[in-house]
Amino acid sequence: MSKLLRPQQFQPGVEMIDHPHRGKVYLVGAGPGSADLITLRALRVLRAADAVLFDALVSPELLLETRIGAELLPVGKRGYCVGSTRQETIHEAMIRLARQGKTVCRLKCGDPCLFGRGGEEAEALAAEGIEVEIVPGVTSALGAAAAAGIPLTHREVGPSVTFATGHHDPDSDECQLDWTMLARSPAVVFYMAVRHIERIAAKLIEYGMPSNTAAAILENGTLEGQREIVADLETIGDAALAVNVQTPAIFIVGEVVNRRVSPQFHAAARIPHTALVNR
Amino acid sequence: MSKLLRPQQFQPGVEMIDHPHRGKVYLVGAGPGSADLITLRALRVLRAADAVLFDALVSPELLLETRIGAELLPVGKRGYCVGSTRQETIHEAMIRLARQGKTVCRLKCGDPCLFGRGGEEAEALAAEGIEVEIVPGVTSALGAAAAAGIPLTHREVGPSVTFATGHHDPDSDECQLDWTMLARSPAVVFYMAVRHIERIAAKLIEYGMPSNTAAAILENGTLEGQREIVADLETIGDAALAVNVQTPAIFIVGEVVNRRVSPQFHAAARIPHTALVNR
Repeated sequence: MSKLLRPQQFQPGVEMIDHPHRGKVYLVGAGPGSADLITLRALRVLRAADAVLFDALVSPELLLETRIGAELLPVGKRGYCVGSTRQETIHEAMIRLARQGKTVCRLKCGDPCLFGRGGEEAEALAAEGIEVEIVPGVTSALGAAAAAGIPLTHREVGPSVTFATGHHDPDSDECQLDWTMLARSPAVVFYMAVRHIERIAAKLIEYGMPSNTAAAILENGTLEGQREIVADLETIGDAALAVNVQTPAIFIVGEVVNRRVSPQFHAAARIPHTALVNR
Repeated sequence: MSKLLRPQQFQPGVEMIDHPHRGKVYLVGAGPGSADLITLRALRVLRAADAVLFDALVSPELLLETRIGAELLPVGKRGYCVGSTRQETIHEAMIRLARQGKTVCRLKCGDPCLFGRGGEEAEALAAEGIEVEIVPGVTSALGAAAAAGIPLTHREVGPSVTFATGHHDPDSDECQLDWTMLARSPAVVFYMAVRHIERIAAKLIEYGMPSNTAAAILENGTLEGQREIVADLETIGDAALAVNVQTPAIFIVGEVVNRRVSPQFHAAARIPHTALVNR
């Protein structure tokens, strides 16, 4: 059963929407994975949209919420994969649809502006004089960490947390990460790091982070089949290999991993979320 | 008119909830301010709860969503204020209610585990053998930044963003911030920093951040009357004083502030969110 409120309770009709004469693009965060972690505002925009451009990892349940007749365009980019959509193609499609007077929902995983290129998309639209509105979302790291019972900050651990992209090979020129800075951080969360777990860990150790610092990989965060691999900086690379970690996953480094709520008291939802759905 | 879906469309009754024999506590993120930036899951937990412990800054609109007969307990802590609730008092109340077999919603601003003490609350509950579940939320910084059109990361600016607490006086022993680390960060967001804007800026300059680095204060993020003060590190302290910035506010430092979407194309929502509410 869908975790979303039932579509028949929502009948977006023409009377509901003050149709704009010019188009507009909403850059919308779909949340960290599970469909019911979208915000109410994001769901409303999605339901009202004339056209929806969606990322590869967006929940299919959400696409069922679009209105009849809405144009659905998959524009997924899966890291390193053939068949990915070029960023410029996405910009061009949004501009074209908005110029047709359409309300466009650009549905992005997590939050649209935290490693989501939302900033670039907004710039491209504004440069063409197209109105844009950003609808924030629960970022992947916060979603996955919550599902695993890991608080990303804790007063006894440290006063900050750093979110970094792990997309590029740490030994390549493309990687702009400041390892001195990261190695001093009480907690670091790497997005899109699956390919580079071992080398990221090695870099952090090289730059002074203790090798017994706690580390966790959260795969398929907030989804059924979320996997949690907990180790330390020294061993996390091997652990990831041993279980063959796949995208999507986030990589958390720091003492916060040890402040994880005991799974004994955290794992099972006593009230399943589906039971909270209105019937 | 409420930005939320109308209560009469949702009739949570006893048949809807698989009542637990033992109580359970949900640590729930209410989102960054505006009521419609709560997640569907969070709203469902809130609507089903027997007892709701809520922070001072939680939207009153959300409290209207609780079911008839639910016990509502304000447990607000406003920084430095007399009348704040002690953390231990919050723990005791949650434990007591859960032991009575109740479903408890601990409704917290933003995300419950990013500077929200959610980790401490989860630990206190687990230590007493009480089941706990964390429902993530849109963190205040992402909400406010989205409303202001500021992307917190941008590929051309840098590969990371750091979230830090600005709660303590930077010159006091209580402040544990690593200024060397923060001054190297391409973007830093300070939470709860209103009292210390000028000294935080001075510290960052002292530790090597250029004094012309862009800086912004976002007051009342995502709410009507959101104010945005944009300056640079050198001048932001005076700017904050000049307009008498108040809590709640976040303080953003870094080139990302300059990547703000032109307000000309961002400010006005062409489809007001209220028009998206089902009638």
